[in-house]
Amino acid sequence: MAEEHGALPPKDDFSGWYNEILWRAEIMDVRYPVKGLYVWYPFGFALRRNVYTLLRDLMDRDHQEALFPLLIPENEFAKEAEHIKGFEEEVYWVTHGGTSPLDVKLALRPTSECAIYPMYSLWVRSHADLPVRIYQIVNTFRYETKHTRPLIRLREITSFKEAHTVHATWEEAQAQVEEAVRLYVEFYDALSVPVIFSRRPDWDKFPGADYTMAADTIMPDGRTLQVGTAHHLGDHFSKTFEITYEDISGEQQFCFQTCYGISERSVAALISLHGDDRGLVLPPALAPVQVAIVPIMIGKRGAEVEAAARDLETALKSAGLRVRLDTRDMRPGAKYYYWEMRGVPLRIEIGPRDLDSSQVTAVTRLGEKTTIPLDSICDGVASRLTEFGSTLRARADDHVRSRIRICGSTGAVRSAVERGVAVVPWCGGRECADRIEEETGAAILGTGVQSPFIEPEEGRCIVCGREGGTTLVGRAY
Amino acid sequence: MAEEHGALPPKDDFSGWYNEILWRAEIMDVRYPVKGLYVWYPFGFALRRNVYTLLRDLMDRDHQEALFPLLIPENEFAKEAEHIKGFEEEVYWVTHGGTSPLDVKLALRPTSECAIYPMYSLWVRSHADLPVRIYQIVNTFRYETKHTRPLIRLREITSFKEAHTVHATWEEAQAQVEEAVRLYVEFYDALSVPVIFSRRPDWDKFPGADYTMAADTIMPDGRTLQVGTAHHLGDHFSKTFEITYEDISGEQQFCFQTCYGISERSVAALISLHGDDRGLVLPPALAPVQVAIVPIMIGKRGAEVEAAARDLETALKSAGLRVRLDTRDMRPGAKYYYWEMRGVPLRIEIGPRDLDSSQVTAVTRLGEKTTIPLDSICDGVASRLTEFGSTLRARADDHVRSRIRICGSTGAVRSAVERGVAVVPWCGGRECADRIEEETGAAILGTGVQSPFIEPEEGRCIVCGREGGTTLVGRAY
Repeated sequence: MAEEHGALPPKDDFSGWYNEILWRAEIMDVRYPVKGLYVWYPFGFALRRNVYTLLRDLMDRDHQEALFPLLIPENEFAKEAEHIKGFEEEVYWVTHGGTSPLDVKLALRPTSECAIYPMYSLWVRSHADLPVRIYQIVNTFRYETKHTRPLIRLREITSFKEAHTVHATWEEAQAQVEEAVRLYVEFYDALSVPVIFSRRPDWDKFPGADYTMAADTIMPDGRTLQVGTAHHLGDHFSKTFEITYEDISGEQQFCFQTCYGISERSVAALISLHGDDRGLVLPPALAPVQVAIVPIMIGKRGAEVEAAARDLETALKSAGLRVRLDTRDMRPGAKYYYWEMRGVPLRIEIGPRDLDSSQVTAVTRLGEKTTIPLDSICDGVASRLTEFGSTLRARADDHVRSRIRICGSTGAVRSAVERGVAVVPWCGGRECADRIEEETGAAILGTGVQSPFIEPEEGRCIVCGREGGTTLVGRAY
Repeated sequence: MAEEHGALPPKDDFSGWYNEILWRAEIMDVRYPVKGLYVWYPFGFALRRNVYTLLRDLMDRDHQEALFPLLIPENEFAKEAEHIKGFEEEVYWVTHGGTSPLDVKLALRPTSECAIYPMYSLWVRSHADLPVRIYQIVNTFRYETKHTRPLIRLREITSFKEAHTVHATWEEAQAQVEEAVRLYVEFYDALSVPVIFSRRPDWDKFPGADYTMAADTIMPDGRTLQVGTAHHLGDHFSKTFEITYEDISGEQQFCFQTCYGISERSVAALISLHGDDRGLVLPPALAPVQVAIVPIMIGKRGAEVEAAARDLETALKSAGLRVRLDTRDMRPGAKYYYWEMRGVPLRIEIGPRDLDSSQVTAVTRLGEKTTIPLDSICDGVASRLTEFGSTLRARADDHVRSRIRICGSTGAVRSAVERGVAVVPWCGGRECADRIEEETGAAILGTGVQSPFIEPEEGRCIVCGREGGTTLVGRAY
């Protein structure tokens, strides 16, 4: 449904590439007539569905899915002082129903603490009710005044997965944050998107949290994208919303809470890390179409080829693959272009000569060409898809690894963050952070870095020389 | 998480029963602090998930899922005159972002024509793009001033499945409306909820439609619940939003459109039709828990019984069933009550005596008790579930059939609508409709009635005696 003309900008021009690929591959249409709101094309939505099905499956292991209202009354929203301060400039307000002004203004949830916790206050009674682990996948809203960007900085976040847990002790909530980090690492692993977890500095934590853990990935332009967060909420919200439980000795105690979220930025990272100059490149596990069959119907044997292509489609579908047979009246080259743009992992070409030798030609999205005998077609396709998935994984690892630099001075940091992130020892002091940020144009992203590519190492703070922990520095989206 | 005390009101007091069962069975929590907004408990959400997975599977056959923004700018919303007139009293308006007033007010979609059709205007270019068949499952909003009721009359409809199609001709759009009716009949068939389709009278059609087909079911109190609609939109919206295509001869033509929707009223109908004085009764295909295993762990053989119950759980799960083993420290009777309230189709009791005779005791939600030998447990459970599903189906059919009365006078209608619907010949004239409605306290629901329980029959209008078609009359929710 998108019109195709001109070429995709090269990925080296990442910003240009990103904006163009979204509509050329029919992920998002940016032409909706309100700034910061975008439309998921069916193809994009199919990709979103696969990503979120995976996320749901992970969450369902020990969470329950529920659904809370979008609209939060002003009085509930204003209850937690830090929280409201953090969000008041970003909240959309509903003030009228029909032609009448409302008695109480309603906020469109920017996140759901104030919608969920009044209910938790009713639901949690006794230690036997704990832990509570509930999540929902919903639309949330931020009145962004900065430059908006599809999937990355939105006014309607269409796909916010937010989990909210309740525990008896601070330590149990801490353990839940660690479990959230493990879950998110597993999730991004399945997307072949390497992430770096770190603990955000205090001035950058979630409004109302004790501390915030965040996952960043490194985009092709070297800037970091925050793709997940997990917050230890302490007992701030439970005191505000009166979430208490009766302990074993019959005493009322305040609960401890966590929340953690992932949004459609996961799809942005997936697209950005794997794509290339010719379009999307999708991991087989997530691709809406895993195999595109293009019959080469030339000359007299057209009908014979088409019949063979249909048999192939049936066989691969029966094997559980997502297959599309492309019999449109177009040149094969145009079809190749079309399916490459949409990131289809494997293209199968079948023509008269292939029929004669009882085989097909298989071309991966990265251009590797082999033949597969028809009598072992399902195994042949499956093994090529598996191999392709591993290749993508290794490629993404290489990209992220190559963008991480261990630095010993602000000068080194300044050059490292031009194309990725820097890892430095930092003492934790605000003054040193300000110095680092001023001299490098980058931000302290977090401490206690967790990544297979980074060795945690104590050292001397690059500003003051006091002892410092492994700290991530980068320019964030 | 809901507190249980007191008893469920008898279903004969339907309104009392409905309000109570929603929280007792943990479907919805009505205590959210805004009128008309409710919370899906995890158990309720699991039921919703099963219902909507089924709906998605049906739609996916020849529709594509997409996702459009919630917020509609006032100028787009006001474009179609009939449409805005139909909705202006019910729309929530966002007027502020943060502390600043917005330049253009934004409506929370009451339905998505005005969000989707500006995009269709960009997407549809040529006859080759047609038909377009897209759906989305979203939250929509109505500022209801009438009495609100969970799942039935809401201010946030959390689960609106709306399909929007585009066609080259009026007749193709008409055929699509017929296809939508078929799809919805199939959907409600899978829920074992009998529906009656009819064509709404002109004064009750969707604002901006040529005509509206609607599905009604008959609730336990005899009132009808509209549980689905399909609208032929003609070219009203395509003219407003300039949705045109180039036909084969190169001329620009206006498109013809349809839209059709189903909401969480589907879940309300499911709950209401099947439930009884002891709680929910759920069709096995949709029940979040299909089998509850209650081990009777008395005396010395407790460990042995529990081990056998765990084996049973594993075996039934491997067979693909949704099973819950209930080892809570509670009396068996309390567990029976708990699972009955939640509509679990089959309860399996296993105690020392069962072990001795290598069998279990199986009790359906309607109280039918049998034994199943352990060595054919999976087949035994599967056949009881299938049988139970058929029983529910027959029971629901009986209910609806018994509530339909063919009537020949307004007097007969008046008495019929006390406990269900009346079917009468009506000439189609507004005056006769007004007379019928005045004299019976019920409404003309629609003409051209489609139901396996109703023979379409021409006759003489019960008011004026002119020729009339089969018309449904009832008191609607």
